[in-house]
Amino acid sequence: MYSIRMSTQDRLIESTRELLWERGYVGTSPKAILERAGVGQGSMYHHFHGKPDLALAAIRRTCEELRAAAQSVLEGPGTPYERIRAYLQRERDVLRGCPVGRLTMDPDVVANEDLRAPVDETIAWLREQLARIVEEGQEQGQFARSLDAREIAATVLATVQGGYVLARASGSPAAFDSGVRGLLSLLRPAS
Amino acid sequence: MYSIRMSTQDRLIESTRELLWERGYVGTSPKAILERAGVGQGSMYHHFHGKPDLALAAIRRTCEELRAAAQSVLEGPGTPYERIRAYLQRERDVLRGCPVGRLTMDPDVVANEDLRAPVDETIAWLREQLARIVEEGQEQGQFARSLDAREIAATVLATVQGGYVLARASGSPAAFDSGVRGLLSLLRPAS
Repeated sequence: MYSIRMSTQDRLIESTRELLWERGYVGTSPKAILERAGVGQGSMYHHFHGKPDLALAAIRRTCEELRAAAQSVLEGPGTPYERIRAYLQRERDVLRGCPVGRLTMDPDVVANEDLRAPVDETIAWLREQLARIVEEGQEQGQFARSLDAREIAATVLATVQGGYVLARASGSPAAFDSGVRGLLSLLRPAS
Repeated sequence: MYSIRMSTQDRLIESTRELLWERGYVGTSPKAILERAGVGQGSMYHHFHGKPDLALAAIRRTCEELRAAAQSVLEGPGTPYERIRAYLQRERDVLRGCPVGRLTMDPDVVANEDLRAPVDETIAWLREQLARIVEEGQEQGQFARSLDAREIAATVLATVQGGYVLARASGSPAAFDSGVRGLLSLLRPAS
């Protein structure tokens, strides 16, 4: 499935990332990872101590990618409102869900401090970025001073994460888009 | 674990509900259900065709309970804004996540039309109730006429569902509460 030029280690990490996204941690067996990576059991244990260790590498890489993608939108051009809108409406594979957020519904990820840490840090980082943009908008008079920037940042993140739930429940991305449009109509500066 | 007066069928359904909430569908084995229910395999197959059939009964009951709990708040006293606030702030076991919403992150639930149907119907019903309350608030001048009631309803639901993700990521209910307060500050009618 992967380029023969990809190292065994990378094939294992990429296979684990895909399976975590599709099946979750609880639903991903070491056997399924080996099959998808086209790698033998010995190779896996040569590079990783086992499923939690491999999952940690996979989760870290997924978190890094999500940060980079979010950063490029949040630091893009436009007013604070426009950058929040760009973040909310950035291209997403809505019906697949968020590769980071979905991990929080995995009991074995949440129960494992090591596996939960990168998820927690990524979401906390995103919230911090969004809060700063809201503050910037308040300084520029785009958003009301009475708003709490960190609370609004949590609402923005929650709308995205909950939007995936609505979309997957209905089998259509439309509900995600509705939730985002609703939030944008509440945030929109009076012109 | 259950009252001896509870029927075998009920013990199986209640055990399955708990396990679906704790472990998800993919992470719940028929063996774990039987152990928790204290029931033999023969009894299970006497009442249910197998795991999907039992899960369907469990999911339906969980959805009915969620509807009843939401309805009592949404039809409670207060202005439209106050009823939406009561819904957003109703007592929740935040760190356990939503017993209905978390099912959407279960690949085998989403892939099975029968299992997804009650989840979809419950969320659609909730959205409809919330949209009506927003419309009522618009008629009473509490919410701006320019808002789309169904979009705002999606935002309210998404904030709740995403709030669970934020809380579980950070290991604390505080992030859920922040997201909700942020949304309420955006919805609050100008006095």
